[in-house]
Amino acid sequence: MSPLRSWFAIPRGSHFSLHNIPFGIISTPSSSTPRVAVAIGDHALDLEAFAAGNGFSALSTIQPSQSVFSQPTLNAFAALGRPVHSAVRKYIQSIFREDTPHPDVLKNNTELQQKALVALKDVRMHLPMQIGDYTDFYAGMNHAYNCGCLFRDPKNALQPNYKHMPVGYHGRASSVVVSGTPVRRPNGQILPNPAAEKKTPILSPCKKMDIELELGAFVCKGNKQGEPLSIDQAEESLFGIVLLNDWSARDVQAWEYVPLGPFNAKNFATSISPWVVLADALEPFRTEGMENDAEVLPYLKEKNPKSVFDIQLQVDLKTKTGESTTICKTSGRHLLWSFPQMMTHHTITGCPLQVGDLLGSGTISGTTASEYGSLLEQSQGGKNAIKLSGGAERYFLEDGDEITITGVCGSDEDALVGFGKVVGKIEPALEI
Amino acid sequence: MSPLRSWFAIPRGSHFSLHNIPFGIISTPSSSTPRVAVAIGDHALDLEAFAAGNGFSALSTIQPSQSVFSQPTLNAFAALGRPVHSAVRKYIQSIFREDTPHPDVLKNNTELQQKALVALKDVRMHLPMQIGDYTDFYAGMNHAYNCGCLFRDPKNALQPNYKHMPVGYHGRASSVVVSGTPVRRPNGQILPNPAAEKKTPILSPCKKMDIELELGAFVCKGNKQGEPLSIDQAEESLFGIVLLNDWSARDVQAWEYVPLGPFNAKNFATSISPWVVLADALEPFRTEGMENDAEVLPYLKEKNPKSVFDIQLQVDLKTKTGESTTICKTSGRHLLWSFPQMMTHHTITGCPLQVGDLLGSGTISGTTASEYGSLLEQSQGGKNAIKLSGGAERYFLEDGDEITITGVCGSDEDALVGFGKVVGKIEPALEI
Repeated sequence: MSPLRSWFAIPRGSHFSLHNIPFGIISTPSSSTPRVAVAIGDHALDLEAFAAGNGFSALSTIQPSQSVFSQPTLNAFAALGRPVHSAVRKYIQSIFREDTPHPDVLKNNTELQQKALVALKDVRMHLPMQIGDYTDFYAGMNHAYNCGCLFRDPKNALQPNYKHMPVGYHGRASSVVVSGTPVRRPNGQILPNPAAEKKTPILSPCKKMDIELELGAFVCKGNKQGEPLSIDQAEESLFGIVLLNDWSARDVQAWEYVPLGPFNAKNFATSISPWVVLADALEPFRTEGMENDAEVLPYLKEKNPKSVFDIQLQVDLKTKTGESTTICKTSGRHLLWSFPQMMTHHTITGCPLQVGDLLGSGTISGTTASEYGSLLEQSQGGKNAIKLSGGAERYFLEDGDEITITGVCGSDEDALVGFGKVVGKIEPALEI
Repeated sequence: MSPLRSWFAIPRGSHFSLHNIPFGIISTPSSSTPRVAVAIGDHALDLEAFAAGNGFSALSTIQPSQSVFSQPTLNAFAALGRPVHSAVRKYIQSIFREDTPHPDVLKNNTELQQKALVALKDVRMHLPMQIGDYTDFYAGMNHAYNCGCLFRDPKNALQPNYKHMPVGYHGRASSVVVSGTPVRRPNGQILPNPAAEKKTPILSPCKKMDIELELGAFVCKGNKQGEPLSIDQAEESLFGIVLLNDWSARDVQAWEYVPLGPFNAKNFATSISPWVVLADALEPFRTEGMENDAEVLPYLKEKNPKSVFDIQLQVDLKTKTGESTTICKTSGRHLLWSFPQMMTHHTITGCPLQVGDLLGSGTISGTTASEYGSLLEQSQGGKNAIKLSGGAERYFLEDGDEITITGVCGSDEDALVGFGKVVGKIEPALEI
């Protein structure tokens, strides 16, 4: 497939080529009201302004619903359903194509260009969705295996249920923040001497502050309570995908997690990238996930084995001296379960998903240390130093460290479908 | 304290005496729009109609905010803060008192009585709050101990963290339903032969359907991300309390819960009673919770040791033949941790609570079988039959079984502060 060419200047290597058209929520110096936009090259197209300037004049489907673009979240747009997302995305592509069939809409309309196109550097990004519930899965099998080896032993690294169901837990929706939001190191209960027979916790700033490299999926179509989504229906519920950093306080987690799972170790912040890459835009990058040697129950069986996405993922750590090191490169293919499988399993009991719900994939790790999506794995539970450029070392994160996760699909520099980035910098703990 | 006397007929034994004044969301045959009401005897006072009829003419505090009573949830009213809840409750009490200082507001105003007072039997109750996040704790120490004995052994029944922190997990907000909503038996993955070496799950209707008798607390004042609530501040965040039935699929739970805790076993339905009993109304029933022989960290230490409530709780099981049996009587005092302690621990990492968040107490059990708040404990994991009136037996719930939880404070039949009830009936599983 040759790249789509545009009359609009889209820099080579942009994550936001004409093949992408991701949706987000922006505000700008001239209008602080959050509203819907798409990213194109190094600009945002403000869809509220675009709609107001008759930008959608040649797309009748959307005309009765244009108020969705004036909303402060993508929920109303998402709720219109995948056929509408598809139509709007294709229409915007058609508007920007060199050979656009509608040149008067934007190409020859400098007034609307001035009103609706804003440089990304001048844009403030907001949380894209109002998140009802957030669920975090554990579908990165290499990560689950590595954690199992650290906390149990290699022979029993994966629990017996692992290959039969997408294991997951309910997370904390209120603590999901958009990229760029600083992350304060949490205080919490930790055990200073875990080996001691008498367990005496202290209240302390977390000393094992970690990241988890994940993908997040947003739901665009819910199900009624008591009525599960079949695996085929679940595809229609996948609005789009973002990058997700599930910040983790490993020492808090180790002490608190029995018997009910992670709680405070995870609920202080979860960061996501601001641009939602639509499921449609990811279609060309479908690939097979990890091989499952267990017999999967029929309700989780997918017709198309290519149900995860070949997203090149990267984690960079910048210390407060400004030195940056790429500490992880991996791929979205390292998942045992797809998002539709997660949704189907989530709802098999009748649990209602709702528009705006967020599902985390679980930490994505490859098979070698430089492909591990958490410091826990990279440092083998804090035993091995992770070497950084400039001679610094890390076992876990220090104050002032900034983590950037990027993700991109494709190799043609003129046709990338990228996620941009999710960034978070560690601030010192509150004094207590 | 002698009971408050009213000019309005409040039946003896009513949960909704003049000492209570709980808040809820109603609709009526004449208006299907959900709105705010209080319960008084066997009537609801429609506060939207009351406000429209100048009912609040003698309470200046509330006048600028009267639109909160036209909302479909209590969130806006809750967000006004405890001093306002207190003033409104006291004012409504004053309006109904025999010696009301404002007789023209309602006592002598039959027109407003006709507009604003509706018999409870004609009222439809709705979910009282829009729930942002739902967290379920595990503060009923007898329950935790009993579960530990069943799943581990009596010597290690409680995990080492148990007495140091309110252990909890994030639940599923979207599946919280109001009393009366039927509960469909979930399908899920279960292990037909847990003892076999090769673990081969099947998809099946849950065969170990259980209840959990809990209290639920609603939050009326949140905290900013990164800024914990101190134990003193947490009192101001407690809006009120409801009864909560945390339906549980024990066979699903047993198979899925390692290592991340309960997920599908709990996310198909959680039922709550519709009337929120304000924290103020519960003040006279403060009592000490269970004794904690561990040294509690300072951030969780309460000035007032009377931090839980002496609520008489009861569970009734009605089979489809119509025969009803009281299967449990216990008390709200059987909690190791109070709701303010739960909130403080929840936020110590900086996790943001928001108005409308729901916290479950965990299952409340006394020390003998007839005081156990779950069938799991009563039947000792399905080993001992629970005898019902009429000769029937149960290990877990059968289709058509209806569970009613009631709760009430006080013994003076003219001054009860009750919760009414939370009811749910088991419907057969969806065929799959």
